[in-house]
Amino acid sequence: MNLEKLAESIRNFEGVTRKRQIEDIVSIFEAVRPEYGNAIVDFGDDAAVIDIGGDDVILFAADGIWGRLLDASPWWAGYGAVVVNINDIAAMGGKPLAMVDIASANSPKACRELMEGLAEGVRKFGVPVVGGHVHPDTQYNSLSVAIIGIVKKDCVIRSDTANPGDLVIAAYDMDGKIGPNSPYSWDTTSFKEPPVLRESYLVTQEIAQKKLATAGKDISNPGLIGTLGMLCETSRVGATVDLDKVPRPEGVDFGQWLKVHPGTGYVFTADPEKAEECVSVFEKAGLTARIIGKIEEGQKLDMYDKTGRVTVFDFSKEGITGIGSE
Amino acid sequence: MNLEKLAESIRNFEGVTRKRQIEDIVSIFEAVRPEYGNAIVDFGDDAAVIDIGGDDVILFAADGIWGRLLDASPWWAGYGAVVVNINDIAAMGGKPLAMVDIASANSPKACRELMEGLAEGVRKFGVPVVGGHVHPDTQYNSLSVAIIGIVKKDCVIRSDTANPGDLVIAAYDMDGKIGPNSPYSWDTTSFKEPPVLRESYLVTQEIAQKKLATAGKDISNPGLIGTLGMLCETSRVGATVDLDKVPRPEGVDFGQWLKVHPGTGYVFTADPEKAEECVSVFEKAGLTARIIGKIEEGQKLDMYDKTGRVTVFDFSKEGITGIGSE
Repeated sequence: MNLEKLAESIRNFEGVTRKRQIEDIVSIFEAVRPEYGNAIVDFGDDAAVIDIGGDDVILFAADGIWGRLLDASPWWAGYGAVVVNINDIAAMGGKPLAMVDIASANSPKACRELMEGLAEGVRKFGVPVVGGHVHPDTQYNSLSVAIIGIVKKDCVIRSDTANPGDLVIAAYDMDGKIGPNSPYSWDTTSFKEPPVLRESYLVTQEIAQKKLATAGKDISNPGLIGTLGMLCETSRVGATVDLDKVPRPEGVDFGQWLKVHPGTGYVFTADPEKAEECVSVFEKAGLTARIIGKIEEGQKLDMYDKTGRVTVFDFSKEGITGIGSE
Repeated sequence: MNLEKLAESIRNFEGVTRKRQIEDIVSIFEAVRPEYGNAIVDFGDDAAVIDIGGDDVILFAADGIWGRLLDASPWWAGYGAVVVNINDIAAMGGKPLAMVDIASANSPKACRELMEGLAEGVRKFGVPVVGGHVHPDTQYNSLSVAIIGIVKKDCVIRSDTANPGDLVIAAYDMDGKIGPNSPYSWDTTSFKEPPVLRESYLVTQEIAQKKLATAGKDISNPGLIGTLGMLCETSRVGATVDLDKVPRPEGVDFGQWLKVHPGTGYVFTADPEKAEECVSVFEKAGLTARIIGKIEEGQKLDMYDKTGRVTVFDFSKEGITGIGSE
């Protein structure tokens, strides 16, 4: 494997480069920062953390579906929107409570398919769509879903809290297949029954309650390395990843696999004393989890294998989101 | 005034007719109704009510901005999205906590303007945008905002709880002007300073805590009569409205005024013994509030003035949203 080429293809992967605009947007809201009193965590994490005054905090996130996927299959877009939103709450160690959606459709057929995809997501994950808004007469299709969840305040799994010395854990549901609409999707949910799925997304609640992780994210559009990069950037740390340790399915090119957005996949960090237990909780829930690397001092994310070592991201030169940079 | 013509123009007003699709959408989610365990109120109200196990409940709503407004002015769309979302929580008697947004923009300029409009809303209302998602490279502009709020479980102001015999109260901030992008918008906020605005949207929290209202909604796209119609439909009641009692600004055609979506405007119902106090709480906060009618048995919303009486909606024949019909 040519590591230099692999690193470059990850850096230039659309799932990664699309995150760069976050910095500009956050800067607009910096001007109104005094109004952020009850928000413990906001931009830059999978979900915002809202203090409601008690032991519990509310998690709040939103995700949209890329236009290309939406036009290819409104049903998948609706269903996929549920999956990514559930993952945003799961990644924080939270219990998802409810979703709302805003949809635009350019035909009654697209609108119905979108909604049926959403409804299938509700059935699978047991989290209701409780309201929203539909524009049934637009020129385009679009779908936005927001979700809330709940978690004990002292159990939240954030992405800006990794420490040098922590071990990096990748956990995937390997019982999946490349999805029908993108070479970078790994569908692990649409063909499984609700009880199985609900167990696999509950696993992060157990990890949160047992305080086994120091930080974590769900693996999303930037893929494993890109997602870990975002975690490092907001935590202001570096990392090294041993590529030979990364769980991988047979029959999928490894470069492609590293860019996959899985239906169920997490990159977590853990204190070395707790990392094995964290791995075993993931495994008991049916995921394949491995210690794949280590959080380091500094601002570089390196990956290596038997053939050598390469720096994928150097946050002193360029960020992914820009959040966490000076 | 030709009452028949006025009634017909309200029935056929786009702000009203666009609500009709809600029924189809809700029917898709009926199939997964068993998953709605912790949702006390869902579709059909301004916000969903989510039980989190304590005295407080979480309110959760989402609103999108019509494409026409968005293309006319991304800034107004961003700002207006905050206003309508704040109103969704205020209408339920809740305290808004935080918002998330999903935006699509067809140019960096449109994207920046959208975000600046949102940020101005944050500054005005003191409710932060804590996260979201931006598609900066779409063919179109779109904006979705979701909001959460909090309220004591026994204080929620719902829209499906009006009773025959209740009085109908309309409350408006009359210090406004027809907005720049639609003859049916009544801007009451963009030119006022934060302390003034925050007092006017806090008024519904006082009404909720004092239990002065039996039901309520914020007046939105369907205008005063259309919004009252939605309240009647979900409450399975009728109503009569005395048009001469409706607060109205000088210099705005009355037919137009009845279709206006005000920045700050509510239609509430109250027990006759509490209606005067409810009016006076609205007035103390700077709104102009009047008892304009009465909730009736049956399924008809009638309006009248000195010249006669007309039925605007007969829910036994046709609904607005279809929610609440047999």
